[in-house]
Amino acid sequence: MDIKEEIHQMGRDALDASRQLAVLPTETKDAALCSMADHLVASAEAVLAANAEDLAAAEAAGLGAAMTDRLRLDRGRLDSVADGIRQVAALPDPVGEIMDDWGRPNGIRIEQRRVPIGVIGIIYESRPNVTSDAAVLCLKAGNATILRGGKEAIHSNRAIAAALREGAVAAGLPENSIQLVPFVDRESVRHMAEMDRYLDLIIPRGGAGLIEAVVSMARMPVIKHYDGICHLFAHRGADPEMAVALTVDGKTQKPGVCNALETLLVDAEIAPAFLPKVADALLAKGVELRADEASLAVLGERAVLAQEQDWSTEYLDLILAVKTVPDLDAAVRHINEYGSHHSDCIVTGDAAAAEDFMARVDSAAVFWNSSTRFSDGEEFGFGAEIGISTDKLHARGPMALRELTSYKYLVRGQGQTKGQPS
Amino acid sequence: MDIKEEIHQMGRDALDASRQLAVLPTETKDAALCSMADHLVASAEAVLAANAEDLAAAEAAGLGAAMTDRLRLDRGRLDSVADGIRQVAALPDPVGEIMDDWGRPNGIRIEQRRVPIGVIGIIYESRPNVTSDAAVLCLKAGNATILRGGKEAIHSNRAIAAALREGAVAAGLPENSIQLVPFVDRESVRHMAEMDRYLDLIIPRGGAGLIEAVVSMARMPVIKHYDGICHLFAHRGADPEMAVALTVDGKTQKPGVCNALETLLVDAEIAPAFLPKVADALLAKGVELRADEASLAVLGERAVLAQEQDWSTEYLDLILAVKTVPDLDAAVRHINEYGSHHSDCIVTGDAAAAEDFMARVDSAAVFWNSSTRFSDGEEFGFGAEIGISTDKLHARGPMALRELTSYKYLVRGQGQTKGQPS
Repeated sequence: MDIKEEIHQMGRDALDASRQLAVLPTETKDAALCSMADHLVASAEAVLAANAEDLAAAEAAGLGAAMTDRLRLDRGRLDSVADGIRQVAALPDPVGEIMDDWGRPNGIRIEQRRVPIGVIGIIYESRPNVTSDAAVLCLKAGNATILRGGKEAIHSNRAIAAALREGAVAAGLPENSIQLVPFVDRESVRHMAEMDRYLDLIIPRGGAGLIEAVVSMARMPVIKHYDGICHLFAHRGADPEMAVALTVDGKTQKPGVCNALETLLVDAEIAPAFLPKVADALLAKGVELRADEASLAVLGERAVLAQEQDWSTEYLDLILAVKTVPDLDAAVRHINEYGSHHSDCIVTGDAAAAEDFMARVDSAAVFWNSSTRFSDGEEFGFGAEIGISTDKLHARGPMALRELTSYKYLVRGQGQTKGQPS
Repeated sequence: MDIKEEIHQMGRDALDASRQLAVLPTETKDAALCSMADHLVASAEAVLAANAEDLAAAEAAGLGAAMTDRLRLDRGRLDSVADGIRQVAALPDPVGEIMDDWGRPNGIRIEQRRVPIGVIGIIYESRPNVTSDAAVLCLKAGNATILRGGKEAIHSNRAIAAALREGAVAAGLPENSIQLVPFVDRESVRHMAEMDRYLDLIIPRGGAGLIEAVVSMARMPVIKHYDGICHLFAHRGADPEMAVALTVDGKTQKPGVCNALETLLVDAEIAPAFLPKVADALLAKGVELRADEASLAVLGERAVLAQEQDWSTEYLDLILAVKTVPDLDAAVRHINEYGSHHSDCIVTGDAAAAEDFMARVDSAAVFWNSSTRFSDGEEFGFGAEIGISTDKLHARGPMALRELTSYKYLVRGQGQTKGQPS
């Protein structure tokens, strides 16, 4: 059997499993999730041995420290992966929700019911915990998954997937609810991306290169989680203390994540007073400032001159681009032009200005007087998230269980025909 | 300027227009729609002259009668297109709806607000009325459109688009709210499909060839409106009169549409009594029956033997495939295997069987004791539809104004930071 045929067989098997998963009661799915957590803990020795193989290969290949750290599992990390599974089991099941329900003049009743999507492909890079995190969220929402992880983590992924499958089967779930692609070459991604007969959705998790490759090959919907180039706009109506606090929080609380700030926009009217204040607070946290000429004239040696590419760079580091803008309108235009439509904030005491900003900034999440760092499934109260979608179709912003579902219409009648009298 | 650059410029212009459309009040959009209807009626002479050019070209090219009829406009058809625009103006505006709204323990409030998608590309074939129907629905939902019609209708499309733009501009809307691609070659479709920087969504309207081509090229989401291979399952618990009436309605009331029946499945327990009854009613309407061996044994000369491909053919004609199945489970498996996940029906007095069928058939719309011909935006009460989606992501089944929107999260706080104390 060649690779393509083997992957298509996985697709058929996943489709079969998904039909069974779609109609399982919540209790059955939750019991299976707990069983999967138990089996993962029970398989810790095998998983860590497999992980050691990956780590040895990483060392031999001269992988960097950051990459190797992403790969590394230990008992503590495995326990927290298992805890994560139990937390998902405890979340409410989105499947079966009646989203809408209405009657028509001819007497038929129409119900819009939330149902699983079906089969979801997850294509990801080095972190082996994604094998569990993604499969488990998809399963809770009644979906079968086909996982294709990076080659660096192949041994770890196999061991984790085996433990999850054992746990699922022990609880009576179809064996192919979760499958891991055994191939790590690019061709296997292409076969998945072209397999629209079996895969309803692909979610790539990783860098821009991976996402680009999947987007250009995929025949089915792809939900993308691109960069966050997030802005804070300090409006003339801002409380300066609050604007400083939110800028420092957005930039420094965890700089390496997609909802961290990358650009500060300052209303020209308050720039002379506000810029030195915010700069001092940021410099105290070790932040490098890259400012446009107007801001630089105020900041002097506290900043360096920004280049054009700074406005569209996701630093993921203690660097902040700073720009003085004439007014709210210019701030909105800058954000819509250079931003990534992820998460953007206005600080102001002027409610009309805030509402105007939130209406016109074309981003998944817009914040008024609160940190962009709250753009997150947990902070939104979704319990767990599969990522933060930068797409506008189907799922936008923090993407959790509800966004892993579709819907169907159920129409109940008493013999009604279109051609009237029966 | 080459074709690619010209189409990208249309994309930039559409994006600019979409930002303005996104925040327009409902009254402004509705007034613009009425103005567009007026301008279309006022331009009737120019539109019909352009249409005559297309018809002459069609005749010269030897286009068939059906194709030519689809192309043809007259005063009556134009008036009904204009009426359609006024009806869309009268529909409720989905934009601005607060879909959800909740608070978090730290005091931030999160609102999920319905917003336009942005820029929508519509790629379609011969019918010039799509130029208006699609653009108008998209506009009501606050979206800008780039339309690319078939070459057979290029003169008609230009005249209609010009009238709509005039009407929009006269009412104060941005000129580029609606744009028509002036090129009719395949390359122009490819440039649109690759232009994910500007187009948020492509909707192809036409045959499978067109949809396939767009799907394989597109880098942005595509919502597909594929075939309807719709089934009616006459369950052992069916009222035979009702099952006959719904079969006749589903097959003959309008055979050329996607929600018409293509296959009748009959529960073996009632086949000997039911099949002759339904066959007589269908034959009286001129329907050709293609039956599996078991059904043929009952029907004799009233049917011919079905071939394997009959189970997956969308006849769009007075032909019906007929199969006897041992039970409900076999009916569900047949539909999920051979159907197109569009619209399927069970006729039965047994509520448990009906609910089981509706839960397990993986289709956009499932009907109990009512005609699949009701799978339609108007019949569902949506007022107008852009098509019936056979996709599971974003929009499934009848797709109307609500499905032409996205959403954003608005988060309002009082200075909350992730790192707690401010």
